[in-house]
Amino acid sequence: MADEVILLDFWPSMFGMRTRIALEEKNVIFDYREQDLWNKNPILLEMNPVHKKIPVLIHNGKPVCESLIQMEYIDEVWPSKTPLLPSDPYQRAHAKFWGDFIDKKVYASARLIWGAKGEEHEAGKKEFIEILKTLESELGDKTYFGGETFGYVDIALIGFYSWFEAYEKFGNFSIEAECLKLIAWAKRCVKRERECF
Amino acid sequence: MADEVILLDFWPSMFGMRTRIALEEKNVIFDYREQDLWNKNPILLEMNPVHKKIPVLIHNGKPVCESLIQMEYIDEVWPSKTPLLPSDPYQRAHAKFWGDFIDKKVYASARLIWGAKGEEHEAGKKEFIEILKTLESELGDKTYFGGETFGYVDIALIGFYSWFEAYEKFGNFSIEAECLKLIAWAKRCVKRERECF
Repeated sequence: MADEVILLDFWPSMFGMRTRIALEEKNVIFDYREQDLWNKNPILLEMNPVHKKIPVLIHNGKPVCESLIQMEYIDEVWPSKTPLLPSDPYQRAHAKFWGDFIDKKVYASARLIWGAKGEEHEAGKKEFIEILKTLESELGDKTYFGGETFGYVDIALIGFYSWFEAYEKFGNFSIEAECLKLIAWAKRCVKRERECF
Repeated sequence: MADEVILLDFWPSMFGMRTRIALEEKNVIFDYREQDLWNKNPILLEMNPVHKKIPVLIHNGKPVCESLIQMEYIDEVWPSKTPLLPSDPYQRAHAKFWGDFIDKKVYASARLIWGAKGEEHEAGKKEFIEILKTLESELGDKTYFGGETFGYVDIALIGFYSWFEAYEKFGNFSIEAECLKLIAWAKRCVKRERECF
């Protein structure tokens, strides 16, 4: 029996993008189902009753929730192609640390840029740049976060790049002026995608 | 060369407890180093420069941070004994989902019980009980979260149990009156530990 893979998602979601990219990396054919988050479909409520959030990956009828967990699941179920996570336990833990860092830090500070005013807005901008600089320092002179190969940490972060223009507009600042190397990394990822498909 | 395993920790930490229990489950001998969080030791700052938090697991000189990631690392490095996570990818993802749920929800609501006043305090109590009831529903009639075997989700949650008396005192409520089955699970875990050591 062929695998039935469904993704409940919402197009601008940087979390959903992770799962889409991970599935594409593994050449997994999936049925993308756009969700209306303001009028939630019974299938979303049934498949993610705890958080009621996208993305939800449904593999042969069974739901997997939370994008980082979905990436690990995809890597374990479809291991034959390019691995997303390294095989060495220490390197895996290192990559997961940065995925977790992105999850805990990037969205929360970015939200203050477009969703808060006054001091809170300014604090969000400052924290956001500090977080990106921390990530830039982790990237160092490597091509991708894991070295020469595009993988887990790159996928965890790259979806946010599509929001950078919005953050810059709301924040009235240039991310590239602050984080030149990180923007160069993002452009490499985007160029790579264009070369692949 | 024998493994050198050091744990930078602070005794009341429910996150540190996870790593201690995971190491004990695997019969890994480790050097426990209590940290003063109000006067941080250079080794903590060096080994976890991003978050500067305990627990930090240092294995042969290399740091692994974040307790859920440490549990997965321990499970991968010392796989010979009882596994903490199931081997099936779907069951693994399911266990990780609940570990992530505990991380995102339990501490934040519990903190409002002892750290907030008035409406915020009351909202924290209400949310805390709702979260425990969600966990109780996931536990169902199973002995442990994973079935018959004590594992990842049990370890992720059990450290909070040692704080329940404090939450009850600050919240002036009985957790057992609300979540009888979850308290029975916690007592099973504690009893089990006494039987093991």
